[in-house]
Amino acid sequence: MSKQQRAERTRQTLILAAAEVFDADGFAPSSLTTISTRAGVSNGALHFHFVSKNALAEAVGDHAMASLRQIARPREAGQGRSLQLLVDTTHALAFRLGDDVILRAGFGLSSDATWKGATDLRQYWVDWVGDVLTGAAAEGALAEGVAVEDAKAVIAATTVGFEAMGRSQPRWFSRQMFGKFWGLLLPRLARADALGSLKPDGSPGLVAALPL
Amino acid sequence: MSKQQRAERTRQTLILAAAEVFDADGFAPSSLTTISTRAGVSNGALHFHFVSKNALAEAVGDHAMASLRQIARPREAGQGRSLQLLVDTTHALAFRLGDDVILRAGFGLSSDATWKGATDLRQYWVDWVGDVLTGAAAEGALAEGVAVEDAKAVIAATTVGFEAMGRSQPRWFSRQMFGKFWGLLLPRLARADALGSLKPDGSPGLVAALPL
Repeated sequence: MSKQQRAERTRQTLILAAAEVFDADGFAPSSLTTISTRAGVSNGALHFHFVSKNALAEAVGDHAMASLRQIARPREAGQGRSLQLLVDTTHALAFRLGDDVILRAGFGLSSDATWKGATDLRQYWVDWVGDVLTGAAAEGALAEGVAVEDAKAVIAATTVGFEAMGRSQPRWFSRQMFGKFWGLLLPRLARADALGSLKPDGSPGLVAALPL
Repeated sequence: MSKQQRAERTRQTLILAAAEVFDADGFAPSSLTTISTRAGVSNGALHFHFVSKNALAEAVGDHAMASLRQIARPREAGQGRSLQLLVDTTHALAFRLGDDVILRAGFGLSSDATWKGATDLRQYWVDWVGDVLTGAAAEGALAEGVAVEDAKAVIAATTVGFEAMGRSQPRWFSRQMFGKFWGLLLPRLARADALGSLKPDGSPGLVAALPL
């Protein structure tokens, strides 16, 4: 392993350790010493990679945002099946929130009053939900009388709520919970003739990929 | 004003100042000096009333819980009109969250990883929503195929999400936002013949009491 590879590995180890500490304790009370100890790295090495706790949190936020952008990809117009994409993506996000401490810490930083960083995962997610619902409306997939803005607010708030509840009770990240949510909401949201083909528990491909 | 009245007033001032500081900065980074300065009280007087920051947070949590129990009162069986009560109570709670920093700080403490106190406003709220939905089911007010547990999870998560979003964007505490939520959800939740009498924006008496 080259010196450069070792440095990159140390950097990744520090980001993971920081995410674990932020996720458990929040941003403000977390100390750089706790993080470097958990990473098995000296304080000097930590400071070589990150000038401050803020810089470390920015790196956690950037990594988390990159993961979120993989899960909820920017939409292209005319892709079709927007509602099922929305359902599948909430399931994938919930699963990853339970599984990926960097993603969870990134969402946590978005809602942490003591952290004033640049990345805002919650806002990206709310905007993404709005884009997909706009796509669903253009496809004529929404039931009559359902306004995109209203559905966006409800779905965004619910997913943020699941994320907040999941921090203390991981069952909120399960596919059952989001399946219940979609089972309740889809009959109201989707046009009746589109409803039959929608899977509240996620598409077959997704179901195979994610454990219950 | 007697000495006892003055002491009680100082105590209330300290609780309010602590709620303001916790609400703005979170529990962990808030210092007792910031709180006593904001309250216009000496550090000595603060310590006379509260032995620690924990004790002060417990007092904030107790006050907030008392407010929440006023807004979402324990239910008696057979009261009737459970769904409208649920709608009205979410509106009242949202309004009070925008208005009452002690209530907001109490909810914030419930979700603050750095605070391990006894009061848990979120859990009380989730349980209350479940009780009222159980009442609605007993009244035969729920639409066919709607399970109390599913509706409880969705409504609890959504309201927690609105509360979390409202911390950075106060419009989430507005009656319009919860009106949209109920406008979307009620047609799915309520039995068709009960739907006409339900007001997603709140009962007339409530509407008169709360500004939009």
